[in-house]
Amino acid sequence: MFEVAEVGRSLSKEEYKQAEPEVHYRLLTLQQKLRASSKALIVIVAGVEGAGKGEVVNKLNRWFDTRDVQTHAFWDETDEERERPEFWRYWRTFPARGSISVMFGSWYGKPITDRAFDKIDDGDFESELQRIEDLERTLTRDGNIIVKLWFHLPREEQRKQAELDSKNFGFKKPGLMGEYSKSYEQLTRVSGRAIRLTDTGFAPWNIIEATDSRYRDISVGKALISSLERALKNNTSVSESTQEPEDSVLDKILESSKSNITILDNLDLDQSLTDEEYDAQLSEAQQRLYKLAWSMHNQKKNAVLVFEGWDAAGKGSSIRRLAAAMDARLYRVIPVGAPTDEELLHHYLWRFWRQIPRAGFMTIYDRSWYGRVLVERIEKLADQREWLRSYQEINNFEENLTSHSIAVIKFWIHISNNEQLNRFKARENDVLKKHKITKADWRNREKWDQYKLAVNDMVAHTSTAYAPWNLIAGNDKKFARVQILNTVCESLEKILNPQDPPSEVS
Amino acid sequence: MFEVAEVGRSLSKEEYKQAEPEVHYRLLTLQQKLRASSKALIVIVAGVEGAGKGEVVNKLNRWFDTRDVQTHAFWDETDEERERPEFWRYWRTFPARGSISVMFGSWYGKPITDRAFDKIDDGDFESELQRIEDLERTLTRDGNIIVKLWFHLPREEQRKQAELDSKNFGFKKPGLMGEYSKSYEQLTRVSGRAIRLTDTGFAPWNIIEATDSRYRDISVGKALISSLERALKNNTSVSESTQEPEDSVLDKILESSKSNITILDNLDLDQSLTDEEYDAQLSEAQQRLYKLAWSMHNQKKNAVLVFEGWDAAGKGSSIRRLAAAMDARLYRVIPVGAPTDEELLHHYLWRFWRQIPRAGFMTIYDRSWYGRVLVERIEKLADQREWLRSYQEINNFEENLTSHSIAVIKFWIHISNNEQLNRFKARENDVLKKHKITKADWRNREKWDQYKLAVNDMVAHTSTAYAPWNLIAGNDKKFARVQILNTVCESLEKILNPQDPPSEVS
Repeated sequence: MFEVAEVGRSLSKEEYKQAEPEVHYRLLTLQQKLRASSKALIVIVAGVEGAGKGEVVNKLNRWFDTRDVQTHAFWDETDEERERPEFWRYWRTFPARGSISVMFGSWYGKPITDRAFDKIDDGDFESELQRIEDLERTLTRDGNIIVKLWFHLPREEQRKQAELDSKNFGFKKPGLMGEYSKSYEQLTRVSGRAIRLTDTGFAPWNIIEATDSRYRDISVGKALISSLERALKNNTSVSESTQEPEDSVLDKILESSKSNITILDNLDLDQSLTDEEYDAQLSEAQQRLYKLAWSMHNQKKNAVLVFEGWDAAGKGSSIRRLAAAMDARLYRVIPVGAPTDEELLHHYLWRFWRQIPRAGFMTIYDRSWYGRVLVERIEKLADQREWLRSYQEINNFEENLTSHSIAVIKFWIHISNNEQLNRFKARENDVLKKHKITKADWRNREKWDQYKLAVNDMVAHTSTAYAPWNLIAGNDKKFARVQILNTVCESLEKILNPQDPPSEVS
Repeated sequence: MFEVAEVGRSLSKEEYKQAEPEVHYRLLTLQQKLRASSKALIVIVAGVEGAGKGEVVNKLNRWFDTRDVQTHAFWDETDEERERPEFWRYWRTFPARGSISVMFGSWYGKPITDRAFDKIDDGDFESELQRIEDLERTLTRDGNIIVKLWFHLPREEQRKQAELDSKNFGFKKPGLMGEYSKSYEQLTRVSGRAIRLTDTGFAPWNIIEATDSRYRDISVGKALISSLERALKNNTSVSESTQEPEDSVLDKILESSKSNITILDNLDLDQSLTDEEYDAQLSEAQQRLYKLAWSMHNQKKNAVLVFEGWDAAGKGSSIRRLAAAMDARLYRVIPVGAPTDEELLHHYLWRFWRQIPRAGFMTIYDRSWYGRVLVERIEKLADQREWLRSYQEINNFEENLTSHSIAVIKFWIHISNNEQLNRFKARENDVLKKHKITKADWRNREKWDQYKLAVNDMVAHTSTAYAPWNLIAGNDKKFARVQILNTVCESLEKILNPQDPPSEVS
């Protein structure tokens, strides 16, 4: 989940200077539109210590016309607050229609720290998050736009920041800062679970990489602009002049190299195996898998394997290598194409529920339910509301599987844009493979950048502790196949020997 | 909650014969409309043993054109099912767009019996219900209409039914039936909590009194007709001939005496006190309250008192008797009228959250947030979707209070229609009270039957174990005042000595 906020996104001073005035102007015009509407905006500023949340709040107060903006900082509870139900302090601060509340700290703080420092157990933690979801639903139904920002720093960055802080402002809660830094792992795990459980279609999370403050601030601006534009789209009482400018500098800059890095860009595609290495490792992994598949069957345990990736990334051939290692009675490969007529008459998850095998078998999906947030999103077969809420539906679906002790193992096979071009060309020149290349493949290729973004979002929203994404470097097919086989073996071993069960909260 | 299904509703043979053909015809035409739509219908048939759920299912199969109807009975899990995640068996059976699934037994069965027979704890029970709510939300978002029917029998009726069954069909799971009957209290408590936690705006529960099978079946028909009409209203592809007939026999019959009994009708309005009794009991109760109010303050405990009732039912004078018994520093009376401009700019619960006192004080509401499901419903100030989902919002709000150890004590003061007329007339003839009677009061009086229904629904949906409704017979003011005072005292004593904390699940 947080891996998408550790990819090294940044903006140069020059880029920031160009983008910032547009953010400022567009937020001001959207604020005017908000004022004339029956809606209100709640901005939740949350995230790890040291990520510069205070600076973000200051920036928001500079960008918005402050007449209608109220900032509320939630520190320790006051006596007044402690003597009332917990949400009272928040209800007091909710904005009137047409105005804005910036929440520095929020209802997420207490459950997360309480759980991380073991003051409450998993059950209480989940109840708290449920109450939060109820609250947010109540608010959005009533016309509130909730923008949730989570600022993330990699561990090392947070440590540096803590040192810097204690050097510059020795007085800034040094004890707490140290404590937080020490519990980084635990807080990250708990926060990840809190985010996942409250990542709803009506109030989704934005996970923002905060290492570079310029990138951080501009992406806050961008997140607010997108949410406000979406929410106020149908409000026609204000002239169309507030629409997105045609030659947006902001968008151009956000598409530029350093601020557009995705989790895929950080994968080392040069990894490869020699033929000898490949032969040896493949055969070893296949033997290992053969035994594991039978152990799974004997213990009546299931696994669901999901293969996604670029066209020509090698999904099919990887699946064949995997299947070759197992007794054919123990698995089934399900190629997922366009839904049938009957499937279209049901919820999009229905066809996947149908395919769930009895205990003791393995199902391998060649493409999967993630089509909802990939091709259906890009081709606009599902509208934004639909695919946004799918993240939670998919997470719930997979939790249904894993809580029934089914291993869910997900792969995205990544190749470079150039490698894909080479493979497409090679296929076209090969009479046996020619049929595999269609016009649709070339069309998809043109949407490479959109897909890259969609994959990044998919990993951000659906890479969970119980069903994480495995990103596989696929330029070298041999390397990819062996890595996939080994990953499957490791996952199966984990489920066969659950000394250390996968859990989001230790 | 179930008290609304123990009021003795019934239909005569004659009435049933008149109503049934209309139910049949309207369901058939609605089914045609459904077929032409992109929606599907899921009917959940649930409730206590012995309530005749099987007969209801048979009736549905007679009323609907069975070509598009599938009935699924969920008994014990099969091997096939046990080896897959729990919801798999349900996903298999979900209807295609345009068609209908009748679920005899459902996802509610297992969590309720598991909790009642102590196989799972409260935490697990709530997680299960949460997953059910997620599932139902996923389905309704995708165009499924979910109609949830809960059939209730009073304890004595169930016992009779069990005897009858074992006499007539000795083979019908006699053991289980006996077991269920023995655990009536426990099952009822657990079911009540399950219903409350899943009584959402998008899939609300219908609680149906099943003692009289004719009334039971016709109200099933009526519930389906209402839900389908509401859900298919915007579907204009079918001619308007399917609209509600102007001279509906069904509606007339359902407004007739025996099938229109509400929980208010069962209140004995003849209860009264003599002057001597009144003086003695009032003074005793007031002294008791005086001490309790100080104990509450000293223990820093809060109470929220809600007064609702007919115009001229005596809310004000009861509140005065109550207030007279307490130190003026310890309570505040909040008369709730039309919302202010500022309040209108917020969620309707915002103004009530604002008023929550610090620990150690009492707040008395003269009218309350229940205006949402009473006047706002009747005067159409809130649309149906809004007030339907308010039940859950209000329950969540009150649970926020009670889980912070605030006692929530709710009164509906009931008087007869005639008594109201007398009081109105008396007020008009009294120069000191004349100002209390307005045209609005006379207008409300005309909507007496609508209000009666709304009150019944309100009690059905919001009378919870932690914040039950107290219905007060108010024709005799003296009786009402003393009863209110005593009820308040008992509730405060309970919260001051929580040996036996109020809980929905023992």
